[in-house]
Amino acid sequence: MEVDEIVAKQSGVITCRPEDTVQTAAVLLHSNRIGVMPVVDAEGAVVGIFGERDIVRAFASREPGVSGLLVGDLMTTAVVSCSPGTSLAKAMDLMKQNRIRHVPVIDDGKLCGIISIRDALEELRRLAELEANVMRDLSIAARKR
Amino acid sequence: MEVDEIVAKQSGVITCRPEDTVQTAAVLLHSNRIGVMPVVDAEGAVVGIFGERDIVRAFASREPGVSGLLVGDLMTTAVVSCSPGTSLAKAMDLMKQNRIRHVPVIDDGKLCGIISIRDALEELRRLAELEANVMRDLSIAARKR
Repeated sequence: MEVDEIVAKQSGVITCRPEDTVQTAAVLLHSNRIGVMPVVDAEGAVVGIFGERDIVRAFASREPGVSGLLVGDLMTTAVVSCSPGTSLAKAMDLMKQNRIRHVPVIDDGKLCGIISIRDALEELRRLAELEANVMRDLSIAARKR
Repeated sequence: MEVDEIVAKQSGVITCRPEDTVQTAAVLLHSNRIGVMPVVDAEGAVVGIFGERDIVRAFASREPGVSGLLVGDLMTTAVVSCSPGTSLAKAMDLMKQNRIRHVPVIDDGKLCGIISIRDALEELRRLAELEANVMRDLSIAARKR
């Protein structure tokens, strides 16, 4: 299974701009109940990723100076991403190795979606159930022979 | 599989107190690279849960006033928890239904551990691999008959 199958079920990606204030970004994260967002420039290219963890890091190290900061000051620019044809297993490996919970899906420089650890878990459960059903059907078929 | 099998592999739980400042809690979350912590009182009873999401929520709504706040002002007191004998599947259901990523494991009022969505994913992958190996062995055994 490839990640584009999961992306196809999603309804668009929330993003922000490097020049957004940290508070604007916090409102976006909070109101959409998401953990991170890809950061895109005026041309739509992904220039970073920004999330809860970045706000907590800033707050831990230099609060109350956080209020004057922009997304571009705090975002992670070394973005771990994958392409639409990446397997779900590979995307999960990326999350594990990098200790991250979200991997943006980028195709030819264009953002297609974002795969979360929650998506991965749901898909894995769905596949496990599907497999259990197939095994049950096979065992019933075998008994009938 | 029950959650206590996962808890047994863990090395203690990071916690904080309601009277800790939000900045102290942010430092704890950041330095331990965790998303949430159970909040315990002087007797060790779990009185809430506090995490990245609470800091972002406060920041979104009333920054820069966050600096004067305590964990007790922002923590979630309606804690969704489970017991050591709860199945992993049930813990995953709790995460899905409540859109949370961590479920504290509480036994007779005492905190035993915390199950994260990452733990659940890792365990599910391990079980899927184990099952695949068993199926392969069975198919080899069947061919030898």
